[in-house]
Amino acid sequence: MSELREIFRAIFRRHVAGVSVITFTLEGELGGLTATSVISVAAAPPTIAFAVSRHSGAGQAIKRVERVVVNFLDDGQSELAGRFASRGTPRFDVDSYHLTDAGLPVLQAASGWLAARIVARHEVADSFLVVAEVEKIWVDEDAEVRPLVYLDRHYRELAPITKET
Amino acid sequence: MSELREIFRAIFRRHVAGVSVITFTLEGELGGLTATSVISVAAAPPTIAFAVSRHSGAGQAIKRVERVVVNFLDDGQSELAGRFASRGTPRFDVDSYHLTDAGLPVLQAASGWLAARIVARHEVADSFLVVAEVEKIWVDEDAEVRPLVYLDRHYRELAPITKET
Repeated sequence: MSELREIFRAIFRRHVAGVSVITFTLEGELGGLTATSVISVAAAPPTIAFAVSRHSGAGQAIKRVERVVVNFLDDGQSELAGRFASRGTPRFDVDSYHLTDAGLPVLQAASGWLAARIVARHEVADSFLVVAEVEKIWVDEDAEVRPLVYLDRHYRELAPITKET
Repeated sequence: MSELREIFRAIFRRHVAGVSVITFTLEGELGGLTATSVISVAAAPPTIAFAVSRHSGAGQAIKRVERVVVNFLDDGQSELAGRFASRGTPRFDVDSYHLTDAGLPVLQAASGWLAARIVARHEVADSFLVVAEVEKIWVDEDAEVRPLVYLDRHYRELAPITKET
């Protein structure tokens, strides 16, 4: 069983993922976590899912908030990803975010973000599999498509396109 | 609403994803689909999730199968990804797969795969959000870590690591 778990971790270390910072407001306090598990589940209505440990501080907060923002990170924003992945560090600099009408923090650095209402929190072992319906969305369509990539415990960049497939 | 959907699609086109082929056996027939939504949800027990359209052929099959295999694709396997993403093409060449003890097809080309038992199919709009618990797993730990990457409708490669983060 423990070998199964080890290989499971190894296989996902080798699986590439996009990086986002999930932010929220709980009782007037801003919070957030770095996530590599955000997926699109359905387009109509636009719905996402992500996983979070139930026993982490972020997981405990996600249990109680109604809405989250997913801030998509670009190339060159690994410092920001690292900041929201560590415990106890100051996370929101005064000039680094703005609030939506609903009072949700949006990171200024994000070239795209979505605000979503949590519609389900499925308990899966020690995690929540959170499902959320998108209410508000923005993308800087002029920005170059250069997402931050996470693989094997490193943030990575993409090679230039060399061939159409 | 339609603008919300358009931006939603645009934002996920710009979000990078790893690529896998999900395979299964239904009534003696082999089937499969290319997926960019496979995530790790929990490690103990190892549990994954992925999304599939409920109205696709694959979605209809996933509704009925008990188990699936997730075959993780590497760099250079975009042809394989394309084959399982299109309709009606022959998908399983005789030499391209083997069967697990449970009769599930594993792609020979995969440098890692896991076989998982479906434990939940959550209906989310037009999709299933499928949750599955890993029963069997294998990874070629000697293989170079060079996963296939999907972004903005293209398969892509990663740039070499230039900097530790």
